Amino acid sequence: MIRFECDYSEGAHEAILQRLIATNMEQTVGYSEDPYCESAREKIRAACDCPEAAVHFLVGGTQTNATVISSVLRPHQGVLCAQSGHINVHETGAIEALGHKVLALPQKDGKITAQQVREYTLAHYADSAFEHTVQPGMVYISHPTEMGTLYTLEEMTELSRVCRELGLPLFADGARLGYGLAAGEVTLRDMAKLCDVFYIGGTKCGALFGEAVVISSPALQKDFRYHIKQNGGMLAKGRLLGVQFDTLFTDGLYEKITGNASRQALRIRAAFEKKGIEMFFDSTTNQQFPVLTGQQMDALKEDFSFTYWQKVDENRHAVRFCTSWATKDEHVEKLVAAIEAL
Amino acid sequence: MIRFECDYSEGAHEAILQRLIATNMEQTVGYSEDPYCESAREKIRAACDCPEAAVHFLVGGTQTNATVISSVLRPHQGVLCAQSGHINVHETGAIEALGHKVLALPQKDGKITAQQVREYTLAHYADSAFEHTVQPGMVYISHPTEMGTLYTLEEMTELSRVCRELGLPLFADGARLGYGLAAGEVTLRDMAKLCDVFYIGGTKCGALFGEAVVISSPALQKDFRYHIKQNGGMLAKGRLLGVQFDTLFTDGLYEKITGNASRQALRIRAAFEKKGIEMFFDSTTNQQFPVLTGQQMDALKEDFSFTYWQKVDENRHAVRFCTSWATKDEHVEKLVAAIEAL
Amino acid sequence: MIRFECDYSEGAHEAILQRLIATNMEQTVGYSEDPYCESAREKIRAACDCPEAAVHFLVGGTQTNATVISSVLRPHQGVLCAQSGHINVHETGAIEALGHKVLALPQKDGKITAQQVREYTLAHYADSAFEHTVQPGMVYISHPTEMGTLYTLEEMTELSRVCRELGLPLFADGARLGYGLAAGEVTLRDMAKLCDVFYIGGTKCGALFGEAVVISSPALQKDFRYHIKQNGGMLAKGRLLGVQFDTLFTDGLYEKITGNASRQALRIRAAFEKKGIEMFFDSTTNQQFPVLTGQQMDALKEDFSFTYWQKVDENRHAVRFCTSWATKDEHVEKLVAAIEAL
Amino acid sequence: MIRFECDYSEGAHEAILQRLIATNMEQTVGYSEDPYCESAREKIRAACDCPEAAVHFLVGGTQTNATVISSVLRPHQGVLCAQSGHINVHETGAIEALGHKVLALPQKDGKITAQQVREYTLAHYADSAFEHTVQPGMVYISHPTEMGTLYTLEEMTELSRVCRELGLPLFADGARLGYGLAAGEVTLRDMAKLCDVFYIGGTKCGALFGEAVVISSPALQKDFRYHIKQNGGMLAKGRLLGVQFDTLFTDGLYEKITGNASRQALRIRAAFEKKGIEMFFDSTTNQQFPVLTGQQMDALKEDFSFTYWQKVDENRHAVRFCTSWATKDEHVEKLVAAIEAL
Repeated sequence: MIRFECDYSEGAHEAILQRLIATNMEQTVGYSEDPYCESAREKIRAACDCPEAAVHFLVGGTQTNATVISSVLRPHQGVLCAQSGHINVHETGAIEALGHKVLALPQKDGKITAQQVREYTLAHYADSAFEHTVQPGMVYISHPTEMGTLYTLEEMTELSRVCRELGLPLFADGARLGYGLAAGEVTLRDMAKLCDVFYIGGTKCGALFGEAVVISSPALQKDFRYHIKQNGGMLAKGRLLGVQFDTLFTDGLYEKITGNASRQALRIRAAFEKKGIEMFFDSTTNQQFPVLTGQQMDALKEDFSFTYWQKVDENRHAVRFCTSWATKDEHVEKLVAAIEAL
Repeated sequence: MIRFECDYSEGAHEAILQRLIATNMEQTVGYSEDPYCESAREKIRAACDCPEAAVHFLVGGTQTNATVISSVLRPHQGVLCAQSGHINVHETGAIEALGHKVLALPQKDGKITAQQVREYTLAHYADSAFEHTVQPGMVYISHPTEMGTLYTLEEMTELSRVCRELGLPLFADGARLGYGLAAGEVTLRDMAKLCDVFYIGGTKCGALFGEAVVISSPALQKDFRYHIKQNGGMLAKGRLLGVQFDTLFTDGLYEKITGNASRQALRIRAAFEKKGIEMFFDSTTNQQFPVLTGQQMDALKEDFSFTYWQKVDENRHAVRFCTSWATKDEHVEKLVAAIEAL
Repeated sequence: MIRFECDYSEGAHEAILQRLIATNMEQTVGYSEDPYCESAREKIRAACDCPEAAVHFLVGGTQTNATVISSVLRPHQGVLCAQSGHINVHETGAIEALGHKVLALPQKDGKITAQQVREYTLAHYADSAFEHTVQPGMVYISHPTEMGTLYTLEEMTELSRVCRELGLPLFADGARLGYGLAAGEVTLRDMAKLCDVFYIGGTKCGALFGEAVVISSPALQKDFRYHIKQNGGMLAKGRLLGVQFDTLFTDGLYEKITGNASRQALRIRAAFEKKGIEMFFDSTTNQQFPVLTGQQMDALKEDFSFTYWQKVDENRHAVRFCTSWATKDEHVEKLVAAIEAL
Repeated sequence: MIRFECDYSEGAHEAILQRLIATNMEQTVGYSEDPYCESAREKIRAACDCPEAAVHFLVGGTQTNATVISSVLRPHQGVLCAQSGHINVHETGAIEALGHKVLALPQKDGKITAQQVREYTLAHYADSAFEHTVQPGMVYISHPTEMGTLYTLEEMTELSRVCRELGLPLFADGARLGYGLAAGEVTLRDMAKLCDVFYIGGTKCGALFGEAVVISSPALQKDFRYHIKQNGGMLAKGRLLGVQFDTLFTDGLYEKITGNASRQALRIRAAFEKKGIEMFFDSTTNQQFPVLTGQQMDALKEDFSFTYWQKVDENRHAVRFCTSWATKDEHVEKLVAAIEAL
């Protein structure tokens, strides 16, 4: 079985593993106050061109989303996000468990627009019963989205502008940010400039695990380590996160290895399209969503794992194929051959 | 200004006020452990034909919804309800503040169906990532709904059957239950038999304030008073609630006085319809939703208060007129005259 | 049975009841936006000599404490209070239910000192693992305390000074504030000046129910009505609270009627002391704590209700007798006679 | 600088690292549903002699405590624990953040007794205002405790008996369980038999990170994976935890490597005692607490890191020295020499 069902099927990139081995028996202080974390923070700040940013390391995405969002909102506030947003559908209500409503907006290709944010917020305050409803307190987006799509620089700039006008911090979930940087026009510097807080995904982009939160807005930086600890994200051996991100941000490794995923994904997409198979979303990143018949699904299932997405019509279903930093040429070649043979 | 904007514009029914005056300087124990509360409980159990029900008195609706729902759910569970449900839109996220996601279902006239509940629940367990999503843990309905509509006995029976089959407690918000009992086919006995827990609204139905929670399911009765206290609903002078509900449930006062509201509402509806004005929902209870032009709204606004509901088309808007136990004939007559003069 | 077990055995003061009757069938808007609430707010601001204060009306004490505290704290913060504080022992964990630890300090006669607050806070920041512990975020006191004692003006001034120095809002629970004003040296103006937020208890001091929150600190005023709604404290017929507090703050009724309680309490205390019975706390307000033998308790129990407090030694127990605005001379005379006959 | 300040200064045991390297590029399914986790579960069940136990893998201790406790308690319940318990003092209020009060009991050497649990619980129900206080809902202990002490088999058996009698699940925090197993009389089988749920610490006992939760009580097993996900503990590359625990539970590695820590700790203790230096707690595990003068602290600080614990008297301070699976003979020898030279 060759796995295309997700982007966390393997361990870590070789360079990271080597670094963990090399430093394994060193003694350092705990809780991310060690020199590796400090070095990684410096490199990330430099890569973001944002010397005043606070950088923190957490273990996983759900934990990071919950920690950031609950650190920003007051109790009567909720977070605006796309209906399809990860916090709205795939985190077992972690945001609500910390007291906040997710204010879901209709999405298009997994994205929401500046106009939607403005309209929702103005409508909130225009309602005579506004105090009986949850106040929008921040905006959450994913880049890339759950559908593999990307915000254009113009879209993200406009979102940022409207959020600042309305006093809503903009938070970007970057669990797959590496794949977005490799395939899109928004750079790490843009992220730091346009978002108030975002994170750089490690788990799905070459690390064993780990997410690097970049808080560019000084107003959101205060006391963040308390929140990490309270939400169970303060790793005792924090230097494991430092070592991994330090490696990823040395010599541009992060963007280098994520480029492989996009390249392989586009090869797979091309194979499907050549076969006349429609793509459910117009994704240029590491997730591709062909629309297959039941027969085609069965044929591919024999040798490849992939994810069921949703029924499209009587006979067809959208499914998801993921590539990653670890995807091998030979695996993609076998998949392409299988697609051609459909 | 004659007020039709809501059903809580006045104080209490005369009989209740007299009873509060008569008992004012009596000394009783606090926290609803007094003889008035005990008497009211007995009368409510009898009216529900449910001798084993636990009956508790709380102050208001949002508090009651939050207390009941948080007492039933485990942390990973959410509550299914209509998109338009009060807990989803008009309680400032009180359910989320206690840790639970509201799982909103598309509504029709404010109602949800047994089929929707079954489909949502089966789809939840059929999803391979079900543990990454919020588990449906109970069902919330309003009777009457926010739109003034009512469940038929058949609809509620079917909902109840499906909920029991799926292990989901069924909870009915009865903030306006009196108006539903007066106008529909579901009786108090039906409520006690079909729901696992529901409440009998006092605030909008003749009392100064107060809601009587009836927990017919023995499984949900344990430790409920702790939950009331924790959620700020344990009134020190609890006998005020006992006196009010004891009066409402003496000689059928509750259903008697709520009948006035329906009668007056239907007069108002008839006046609109006679004028060729469409009703936005087919309500038979104390809330009526005519669709007016801006000009018509302006004309009525001069002497009457009512609530803006939503835009219907370029020129027309749905608005809400409420009657109550306190609505006077002369006020309705003036309104009818004004409608005729539109 | 004559009841001295608490200060909420009766209904409301006659003047309040008359006012509720007189206004009963008036129509007003809901949710405390009516003219009665507005008038009461003005009178309270004037009585506090604090024109910029925000004044809000809630139903009960636990609800008020939870609403105020959760509106002030961020998620990683806790509230400093006396070990014996109401929020720490008698609210079924309502503060924790909203996410915050109660940071209990050793108390003396129910009070905490400025020095304790400073020492705790400095120790918190001096701890190298401070981010692993709950950050002190505000201070809660009761005035009068659970033991009936009062802060002197000097003590409260010093507490206020230290709190401001440390950036900790000072919140006073005034469930029995009327009895404190009647018996102590701290005035309503002092409360408004020294506390950042406090409340004026109605439930125990002449009203049917209701607490008036005074937020003198502008920094804490924003969006408070959302918090009231979310915590179930937004009364639909809010004018009931307005009418009651407007009456209490007309012609100084509040302080007048609470004076009766102190006077009666001191008569009871004098009777115990004359009999050589020790008082467990040195209370000058409406709660008195004689230390009785089992035999004495039994003798008094026949005609009077009172509250068991705690065991003092092998043979003796502290109990509590409460008076209130409603306590009658004849009841106190019977009690005094019974004490003399012990 | 040689570090004795904690037991998480290094990375992982060599055998674990080798296994991670060997399996690094294998493809597996995520979220701990892979064969490595399954194998580790089987081995842990066998080691516990508890075939019906549910075994789950989480990342860190605070997360594990919060997840287990919030999965067990209802909203009005709290968790009994020693005043010095980790959840009470060093988790930034994580338990309260999920809604529950920590009910702290006076501790002796970090331990609580069966009698304390019984007395607290009986006193709770004997209080006439019990519904106004937090209901004890479970018991949390640490084994070893924060002070390095251990429950005897008799103590833990008695605790377990009382907990079952009172219907309170017993939960043991085993962050350092390996060091307890190596030094005490309670075995893994005893843990599984006497506790309803406990965890086997990996982070401090040889793994890079990870804690294995063993839920021996069937009543607490339902839906636990939802709770893990909601609390941010569902590691995407879950097999990393499986690989680590599978290695630790192969050929008794876990108890073998933790034995080193106890052995080294006792050498250090002996050196202090030989010097006439008193130990603050009678610990037989990997944490040792000598009572030093300021001068002695300064002398040792030059070459060794250790943790300040508390002031003991005018001139003396308790400090903590930790050993671990990774502590080297040569480091201990240098420390012993330095102690001798004091």
